Amino acid sequence: MAAFPEVSKIRYEGPDSRNPLAFRHYNPDELVEGKPMKEHFRFSVAFWHTMRGTGADPFGAPTMIRPWDTGENTIENAINRVKAFFEFCEKLGAPFFCFHDRDVAPEGKTLAETNKNLDAVVKVIKEEMDRTGVKLLWGTANLFSNPRYVHGAATSCNADAFAYAAAQVKKALEVTKELGGAGYVFWGGREGYQSFWNTDMKRELDNLARFLHMAVDYAKEIGFTGQFYIEPKPKEPTKHQYDFDAAACINFLRTYGLEKYFKLNIETNHATLAGHNVEHELEYAGMQGFLGSVDANTGDLLLGWDTDQFPTDVYLTTKIMLVFLKYGGIAPGGVNFDAKVRRESFEPIDLFYAHIGGMDCFAKGLKVAAAIRADGELARLLKERYSSWDTGIGAEIEAGKHNFKTLEKYMLEKGDVSPNKSGRQELFENIVNRYIF
Amino acid sequence: MAAFPEVSKIRYEGPDSRNPLAFRHYNPDELVEGKPMKEHFRFSVAFWHTMRGTGADPFGAPTMIRPWDTGENTIENAINRVKAFFEFCEKLGAPFFCFHDRDVAPEGKTLAETNKNLDAVVKVIKEEMDRTGVKLLWGTANLFSNPRYVHGAATSCNADAFAYAAAQVKKALEVTKELGGAGYVFWGGREGYQSFWNTDMKRELDNLARFLHMAVDYAKEIGFTGQFYIEPKPKEPTKHQYDFDAAACINFLRTYGLEKYFKLNIETNHATLAGHNVEHELEYAGMQGFLGSVDANTGDLLLGWDTDQFPTDVYLTTKIMLVFLKYGGIAPGGVNFDAKVRRESFEPIDLFYAHIGGMDCFAKGLKVAAAIRADGELARLLKERYSSWDTGIGAEIEAGKHNFKTLEKYMLEKGDVSPNKSGRQELFENIVNRYIF
Amino acid sequence: MAAFPEVSKIRYEGPDSRNPLAFRHYNPDELVEGKPMKEHFRFSVAFWHTMRGTGADPFGAPTMIRPWDTGENTIENAINRVKAFFEFCEKLGAPFFCFHDRDVAPEGKTLAETNKNLDAVVKVIKEEMDRTGVKLLWGTANLFSNPRYVHGAATSCNADAFAYAAAQVKKALEVTKELGGAGYVFWGGREGYQSFWNTDMKRELDNLARFLHMAVDYAKEIGFTGQFYIEPKPKEPTKHQYDFDAAACINFLRTYGLEKYFKLNIETNHATLAGHNVEHELEYAGMQGFLGSVDANTGDLLLGWDTDQFPTDVYLTTKIMLVFLKYGGIAPGGVNFDAKVRRESFEPIDLFYAHIGGMDCFAKGLKVAAAIRADGELARLLKERYSSWDTGIGAEIEAGKHNFKTLEKYMLEKGDVSPNKSGRQELFENIVNRYIF
Amino acid sequence: MAAFPEVSKIRYEGPDSRNPLAFRHYNPDELVEGKPMKEHFRFSVAFWHTMRGTGADPFGAPTMIRPWDTGENTIENAINRVKAFFEFCEKLGAPFFCFHDRDVAPEGKTLAETNKNLDAVVKVIKEEMDRTGVKLLWGTANLFSNPRYVHGAATSCNADAFAYAAAQVKKALEVTKELGGAGYVFWGGREGYQSFWNTDMKRELDNLARFLHMAVDYAKEIGFTGQFYIEPKPKEPTKHQYDFDAAACINFLRTYGLEKYFKLNIETNHATLAGHNVEHELEYAGMQGFLGSVDANTGDLLLGWDTDQFPTDVYLTTKIMLVFLKYGGIAPGGVNFDAKVRRESFEPIDLFYAHIGGMDCFAKGLKVAAAIRADGELARLLKERYSSWDTGIGAEIEAGKHNFKTLEKYMLEKGDVSPNKSGRQELFENIVNRYIF
Repeated sequence: MAAFPEVSKIRYEGPDSRNPLAFRHYNPDELVEGKPMKEHFRFSVAFWHTMRGTGADPFGAPTMIRPWDTGENTIENAINRVKAFFEFCEKLGAPFFCFHDRDVAPEGKTLAETNKNLDAVVKVIKEEMDRTGVKLLWGTANLFSNPRYVHGAATSCNADAFAYAAAQVKKALEVTKELGGAGYVFWGGREGYQSFWNTDMKRELDNLARFLHMAVDYAKEIGFTGQFYIEPKPKEPTKHQYDFDAAACINFLRTYGLEKYFKLNIETNHATLAGHNVEHELEYAGMQGFLGSVDANTGDLLLGWDTDQFPTDVYLTTKIMLVFLKYGGIAPGGVNFDAKVRRESFEPIDLFYAHIGGMDCFAKGLKVAAAIRADGELARLLKERYSSWDTGIGAEIEAGKHNFKTLEKYMLEKGDVSPNKSGRQELFENIVNRYIF
Repeated sequence: MAAFPEVSKIRYEGPDSRNPLAFRHYNPDELVEGKPMKEHFRFSVAFWHTMRGTGADPFGAPTMIRPWDTGENTIENAINRVKAFFEFCEKLGAPFFCFHDRDVAPEGKTLAETNKNLDAVVKVIKEEMDRTGVKLLWGTANLFSNPRYVHGAATSCNADAFAYAAAQVKKALEVTKELGGAGYVFWGGREGYQSFWNTDMKRELDNLARFLHMAVDYAKEIGFTGQFYIEPKPKEPTKHQYDFDAAACINFLRTYGLEKYFKLNIETNHATLAGHNVEHELEYAGMQGFLGSVDANTGDLLLGWDTDQFPTDVYLTTKIMLVFLKYGGIAPGGVNFDAKVRRESFEPIDLFYAHIGGMDCFAKGLKVAAAIRADGELARLLKERYSSWDTGIGAEIEAGKHNFKTLEKYMLEKGDVSPNKSGRQELFENIVNRYIF
Repeated sequence: MAAFPEVSKIRYEGPDSRNPLAFRHYNPDELVEGKPMKEHFRFSVAFWHTMRGTGADPFGAPTMIRPWDTGENTIENAINRVKAFFEFCEKLGAPFFCFHDRDVAPEGKTLAETNKNLDAVVKVIKEEMDRTGVKLLWGTANLFSNPRYVHGAATSCNADAFAYAAAQVKKALEVTKELGGAGYVFWGGREGYQSFWNTDMKRELDNLARFLHMAVDYAKEIGFTGQFYIEPKPKEPTKHQYDFDAAACINFLRTYGLEKYFKLNIETNHATLAGHNVEHELEYAGMQGFLGSVDANTGDLLLGWDTDQFPTDVYLTTKIMLVFLKYGGIAPGGVNFDAKVRRESFEPIDLFYAHIGGMDCFAKGLKVAAAIRADGELARLLKERYSSWDTGIGAEIEAGKHNFKTLEKYMLEKGDVSPNKSGRQELFENIVNRYIF
Repeated sequence: MAAFPEVSKIRYEGPDSRNPLAFRHYNPDELVEGKPMKEHFRFSVAFWHTMRGTGADPFGAPTMIRPWDTGENTIENAINRVKAFFEFCEKLGAPFFCFHDRDVAPEGKTLAETNKNLDAVVKVIKEEMDRTGVKLLWGTANLFSNPRYVHGAATSCNADAFAYAAAQVKKALEVTKELGGAGYVFWGGREGYQSFWNTDMKRELDNLARFLHMAVDYAKEIGFTGQFYIEPKPKEPTKHQYDFDAAACINFLRTYGLEKYFKLNIETNHATLAGHNVEHELEYAGMQGFLGSVDANTGDLLLGWDTDQFPTDVYLTTKIMLVFLKYGGIAPGGVNFDAKVRRESFEPIDLFYAHIGGMDCFAKGLKVAAAIRADGELARLLKERYSSWDTGIGAEIEAGKHNFKTLEKYMLEKGDVSPNKSGRQELFENIVNRYIF
């Protein structure tokens, strides 16, 4: 029995301006800048939100109707979920997925039992991947839900929690390798603090670095060559997460000699919680050589928590796709929908509405971004804005020919300078609108 | 004629529980942890707020009544201000001051004229310093107010603005050296962007690094041995400042090989605008070796701009002083009141109320911090919390004896772990209150 | 067997500066402004946080260790919880408690069964109240956790949800009356919207008013004379709650002719999420005649969600107690600790640390507030600040003797006016510190 | 000499996809829902931002290049500004303008002199209005910039400030009437507080109400029949403004019997600073009968101050125009661009880019809104969502046929209810995107 009987076929099949289950902008094989759309995005479905999101929130019980899921914590139910999940990916036309170890298989009473459970489910995942052609964008380990991680995992005050986390990530790396994962993500779910008073930040960060070095070593040992990512987030669930934003992550990596091994997995809603627009974080990572992958979602900027909504704002997707195009694409990373349907959108069909809307919004954003680049007007205005650096004193400075004394001499002769030209922010914004509509 | 005739003597002269112009907790020579209070703080008065703050805001005209200031943009008026300023520092009992080049002397029509103006005023500053014994904590250049810096200074799209800024900082360094300044601060007032669309962030940051290297080189050349500081701020006046927070600054310094030459000047209200409590930023800087100096103020956490209020919350000053004591003191930095009296507090006497309140609040915070350390209960609870790292598996991990495989083996034998003990946040907070009251 | 064997006796028994389980400032019978401390506060323990808080958060499983709770959804377990709860209140010395209907008794398959369950537990509650003397400050119904309320209760798009909520509140009112509750609170947990696009705000608010009128009518019918309260909260769980803040609530009540029947239950963390300090909300409610009761907690102002932490900041409690004293006390409302121990503080003893810390902090705040009032200096400064309204033109205006024409005449003669005097904010703040330390 | 020689003609003259000085969506006479576009918007240019915005900010000096403005505080210069302003409005094709009294004419040494100055300039304004056909949307008085209003105007602790404000508003009303203004706005620039400690909120609000009653009375007396508006803003320049948001304003009006005389002037950036999306504030005002006029701009949601940027987001303008269409239009209010070019956009031509972008963005939003209404799908989905209220128990409840007892009976029989259907938020959002692109 199909988990999603109401959706017989939702792959793109030509213009259908009325059907909310048809793409209007996303055509996987359409070429944009010489590359099929699907390769620009490498869309991925998140197992956790799509299959394990219950609709529970701090004030209410689960609401999601998931007919294929009995709610039991058994291998059998886990396998049913996996099958429903791949049916979903297939019907949606998503080429990748991501998962946490504990999403797909139930924890047992001991680590050994838990690992055995995981193996049993991973076997079915592999079969389903073979059957459908859906690939693994990245794997990860859940190091934050179990009470053993109440004080963190690699940064816990409890050394045993560190040890357990080590064992867990070891297994997750093995599984990710087995499934041909293109990457592996570290999101430090509880690596941070709730109270500054009871925290030894230095010791905790030393341990976090120690942990990541162990991961790097073990990946080498088993020949896992996928990309490692750190995912910045400033707060929630802890009051202050150590991986606050791109700058904090990169500085951490550099402090501990880990910068060669990691890139960043940037999430829109995490960026805004840290006070940055996502395009800032992407460009910051890009220019520092750490652009890795994207967790696609959006937040409500009037709310102070991670709402993980599906992205439906084309201004947002345009900005993201401009960064991708600038840096030559996001591979081996991708666009993973780390987004959840609202608690009120509890029917299975809502999963389709949400993902289709998000993919379509990215497709429209890609088209706008490509049009902006093809036209070249924004680039021309930008080049013009910095033109004083391309000749004369500017070029000399950038060539390293000046110091404070020569520049003082230059300026004493010149006397003073005035603002050379308008920043034209409004014009830039209007031109962007020209491409969007 | 004295600028502040209403204050005959405000130095501490014994208990006076009613006089708001007398200190109740601050006694400069009282020993705390074996060091006179004044050496713990190295209090500094900011020339800009105290002498040049007008009370103007985006919705209103100046309000401050400053009888010694004619409002004229002349050397003579500048000198009057300098004299009033040192009278204030002296009556207040502040051992240090800080200034921007453009606060103390008017700009002329050319750089040459401006430098000449500065020299004329600096001569008087030096005399006043000699007369009063007040010292220079740090100097800095204002690279953000003049329209030539509308697009930034070192990060401007206008190469001439960079050149002018270079000449200006050259002079400011010379003056700071001449006045025996213990440090020099870079606050990148407009080093950031208003619009991501019109900005080449990489090029701008490359230029900023180039600029700072020139400063380092020039300091060496002239033998200025004071400490260089960068002052983090996340936003305002620009939409996004490059020196967002401590992590962004340190990462920038490391990216461009500048980490040996700079420490951080941390400001409370800047920290909170970036989403951090100030104790986080101080400890983060401290553990990374970048703790430099402090701009003491406080913000209103329900407001989204830099209010630069005087600190009057003892919880805040206690946390700051705990970091100072932990890292062996803040020298050669200090506690500079980068704080302004409210627009409504427009009388000269309000400058005293404000600074006395701030100094007293720091003094009380120091006493509480010292009591916390003397008693040792919080430290004991903290040590106990991390005790699993001091023996057994924890100690082995920290000694580098483990990897993912040995830890998996350990954990497969152990089976699972549980949270070992409560974090006791509420107890910690209650104990802190015990010392405060 | 006692639920809390580790606490033999925690009532105040004289100075004990080391025991964190002893009050240092709170002495229930000590007179302040002629009234025993306990009557100033009317402290209340919240059944939901204390007994039903599990430590689960959106990223993690329950952590709380509650030996008396089997986790089963049975009447027997519910009764065990009630007994542990009253043991806690008794050992703590709290004179009041609050509860939601669904906290104390499990839901059944039908409303009839649920009501029966509730009756069975309420019987034991009553016995425990009689045994211990602990009284009910207010009751309320949980109209937000069950999936039937996914779209709201009184504001649901589903009329049946409204009907169920009506039946539920009817029963909750009956139970509250039976237990002698001094009040009844409406917190509109999901009365708001997640998406403006799918919401008919007017229709929803009309229905909310209809619902509250039914409640008023039914209270009259059964002779429930306790005070009705609305509890403002701006957001969470919904994106926008209708009862945003005190102003929104009062305006709603006035719009629908309900203003005679309700007062407000103000919560610190809800106030700050709405952009107000709690003292603003309390004074706003007070001056409009709607000051009802207080949900005491505190939030982390750098976080955007309701953290419901225990209050430990004396500045906060001082401000709250000043409002209480100004308006002649909070009765029949009280100080209900709508606060939860941190997820990491999972041991039973943490419940004591937390409540004792909160009560003590309020006691210290009361003493400071009383000292401020006894001394009178702040009041004198405030009166002086507004003195221009007490005579001359000010007094005439307040007496209704002027209009625009007479005032223009007055001002044409006068010519212009200047700011009359400093607002002295810094002085006010310093004086407050004088009373705190 | 024309103030704007570079713009010969910018009125819409057919498709021009390259010219940033041509409208692409706004055609004033194009009919939408049977009404010319220009009547939907009633676009207005704000004199203050456009003519008096200097580009100064708290960290920098003025930057704007305005060749027609000598910077002198003379009548002659004021008249030059007026002429440049009307040239701008005319070339832009804006049918309305708004102004503060102090924008257009300089203050003198006395009220009498100031009034005389105002008369001199108003005479020219009138001539320019006659010449160009540009009309006055609303007038207002600046009661916040002059130091006399440092503590507020109608809420000042200084009764003379109240008196001066009364005289000033009297004159502003007379001038607004003389110029045929369609309305008059009260924005309480400093009606609020900086410090709760030094404030008597009740007395201040009583005085504010007294002031507004005087205004109502005087308007009657002189026969001014334009609409009165209050403009909500939560903070800035004060820490807490009394007119926080729509709810606070309406509650204030009701408290003091002013609700018949005022509507609201809603501003996007003010709404978001208060924690509301602007569509919420508009709909809230609309359903309460207080929808008056709109100050069109946008804010940066990552910044905590009023940036007053020009609106360029079509999602925003679509939502605004949907409310206008729902309530039958905004007249006698309009869409006033309370927006300023960025400090960096200092050339006169930027004023055109900015206003054209804003008007075009509103035009596109109107077209999208009209398409959404014409298609009817969103309305149908919304109606379907609430369908349980249109028959059966829902219809009976809305007809007033039920109470708690009858509803309990109904529900005891039914047993329980489940969520009836998904909220479909993602589908709604996707459908909106369908109309935008």
